[in-house]
Amino acid sequence: MKPLHYSPTLLLAFSLVYFGNAAADPLRGSGDLALVVERATGTVQIVETSANSSLCRVGGLGDLSHASAVFSRDQRYAFVFGRDGGLSKVDMLTCRLVARTLQAGNSIGGAISQDGRLVAVSNYVPGGVKVFDAATLRQVADIPATWGHQKTSKVIGLVDAPGQRFVFSLWNAGEIWVADMHNPARPTITKFSDVGRNPYDALITPDGRYYLAGLFGEDGMALLDLWNLDAGVKRILPGYGKGAKKLPVYKMPHLEGWAIAGRQAFVPAVGHHEVLVIDTDTWELAGRIPVHGQPVFVMARPDGRQVWVNFAVPDNDTVQVIDTQSLRIVQSLTPGKGVLHMEFEPRGEEVWISVRDRDQLQVYDTATFAKRSTLPARKPSGIFTTARAQRIGL
Amino acid sequence: MKPLHYSPTLLLAFSLVYFGNAAADPLRGSGDLALVVERATGTVQIVETSANSSLCRVGGLGDLSHASAVFSRDQRYAFVFGRDGGLSKVDMLTCRLVARTLQAGNSIGGAISQDGRLVAVSNYVPGGVKVFDAATLRQVADIPATWGHQKTSKVIGLVDAPGQRFVFSLWNAGEIWVADMHNPARPTITKFSDVGRNPYDALITPDGRYYLAGLFGEDGMALLDLWNLDAGVKRILPGYGKGAKKLPVYKMPHLEGWAIAGRQAFVPAVGHHEVLVIDTDTWELAGRIPVHGQPVFVMARPDGRQVWVNFAVPDNDTVQVIDTQSLRIVQSLTPGKGVLHMEFEPRGEEVWISVRDRDQLQVYDTATFAKRSTLPARKPSGIFTTARAQRIGL
Repeated sequence: MKPLHYSPTLLLAFSLVYFGNAAADPLRGSGDLALVVERATGTVQIVETSANSSLCRVGGLGDLSHASAVFSRDQRYAFVFGRDGGLSKVDMLTCRLVARTLQAGNSIGGAISQDGRLVAVSNYVPGGVKVFDAATLRQVADIPATWGHQKTSKVIGLVDAPGQRFVFSLWNAGEIWVADMHNPARPTITKFSDVGRNPYDALITPDGRYYLAGLFGEDGMALLDLWNLDAGVKRILPGYGKGAKKLPVYKMPHLEGWAIAGRQAFVPAVGHHEVLVIDTDTWELAGRIPVHGQPVFVMARPDGRQVWVNFAVPDNDTVQVIDTQSLRIVQSLTPGKGVLHMEFEPRGEEVWISVRDRDQLQVYDTATFAKRSTLPARKPSGIFTTARAQRIGL
Repeated sequence: MKPLHYSPTLLLAFSLVYFGNAAADPLRGSGDLALVVERATGTVQIVETSANSSLCRVGGLGDLSHASAVFSRDQRYAFVFGRDGGLSKVDMLTCRLVARTLQAGNSIGGAISQDGRLVAVSNYVPGGVKVFDAATLRQVADIPATWGHQKTSKVIGLVDAPGQRFVFSLWNAGEIWVADMHNPARPTITKFSDVGRNPYDALITPDGRYYLAGLFGEDGMALLDLWNLDAGVKRILPGYGKGAKKLPVYKMPHLEGWAIAGRQAFVPAVGHHEVLVIDTDTWELAGRIPVHGQPVFVMARPDGRQVWVNFAVPDNDTVQVIDTQSLRIVQSLTPGKGVLHMEFEPRGEEVWISVRDRDQLQVYDTATFAKRSTLPARKPSGIFTTARAQRIGL
């Protein structure tokens, strides 16, 4: 039989088709990648933070309002949680959507387990948490958020914690649940009830020890020490939250936007033009810093020396920088209308800012505050670096 | 002209030659890679920590006694510092030695700059620090460690710090230098003299704020607050160090082996069968924990709940685990003779241990202490995960 022969040119063409949607050379490290949510078009843009360039765009991810992402432990894959209940798995090296499931009617976030094998999604409709195999997106567990007499609850504030656990809060029930996922098919769940009315968002400290839920229905916050579950949930920060508002609240601040820097937490005041300083030893208020508007995200540079703040409308064209040693504002920037998110490079030398109304990503040097790069993006919102794969609770 | 034709089989063969030394598929994420130093053979083994398997081996790296490694910010390349003054750049995806320079006669460690563009090496012989372009290994700066009347010093304890800085200590001079590398060809150097006699090793806290040098020639340690250089170097921990020894010291503990967990530092006592607990607010001794032998490395699990300790001869077959809340030993393991290093996976679910005399890497579950994997390795010493690329000071 006569052998087939192909010209090198033809084989090169095949290769280009194979990697058609990908960056020029998919063989690259994945430690300096980031994913940018383009909410209006249902796309994500993959960028790299070494030379600050765009690599490619992946589409077909559905409704990406308030979308967020987590990463596989090898930092090759992103799991994107869409508002429409869609869970999408993106290969960032070949720039392809490799799996997608419409797992619920309305979801608001997710997490990846400590060992990287499980992806969990928290749902508004029908409520509860669903857990998927990270390799295949096959569902491995369904945790209905049932309470009282056959009632179900919206779930919010889902995070991963050490010990292969997921922690989340039940809006309607006023409960916090800790799910041990060592046996994925049979999660072991510890429930804390009466934590406060309508927890609306939550965070876990960078060491994975403390879980804090904000309360929409009353003052204060709920604090759970995961090292001492027997001590139960405590109420802290009386006066913080909805009850304390004096101005109309244009946007409830996300607790993800709390900055833990050394022993201090920097927290957006709800409905005030202030960033609050909290002592994480006592969880008591230690100071107030007047800022330009109602803060939304309050993000610590990885070394904890700076905290960057963005604001709700009508002040969402501005970013301010607080020095955490002097507690003074050391810089104000005006990237443009619609500053929606900020993400530091892993060792903090630069910060990426999404400026929705300018269709731009802007990158600033955090030492000099000089603008280093500007990249086009379609109505960008969330920016997520792959370094999150190697952090607890992100 | 007649076109050349190649059979697909032949082209496949070309491809295999091209990636000859590589793992089966070099297209993979680099976030779960680790490099293991095989000291006796001048080789490094590349492993991955998701399925705990070996990917390949790279040779020709020279004398790797006490070798250490840092990583490029994309986590594709490792820079290996050999005892013979060799600086080697390894492509971990294709498994190739891509550059190597014999930069000095005798070196003991190095660091990579915050922005990932510069690799610095500290030298015993002829002393001083040399700085290289991370892309090419071309030398870009030479910082001779001169002091007094035309004297030169051995340099130790070289680390990276925020603000594109390197910090290091001069053994002979008793000085600490801070080099701002924003202009690589003309480093701006701030010198602190009379810090104490013969600094022998140093560390920087995980936030990059405090630099501590151990003193061989006298008691105590030298502390520099990089946020407040004007305050100068302070002496802390009187009684710590050489002067306090009661037993023969079988191995000076590396300060890299200090564990900072929350507000506590866990520190090997020099010449005692104890781990010391230090309050990092006051830098005063807060406790002593009796352990099995003379501790060498005292490493914190990333969530800070556990501290793992290995020991000098004759107790180097054992590892102990301290619970940082109760300050009690909760586990003792016996991996075998010659436990030289330990490295946690980035989110702490497993720990890798090099067991030289068994030619093994052993991987343990940190929750159950069960042994999960055993891999062959040739006289392994240091283990370094690529997550270090995204941490300050590692």
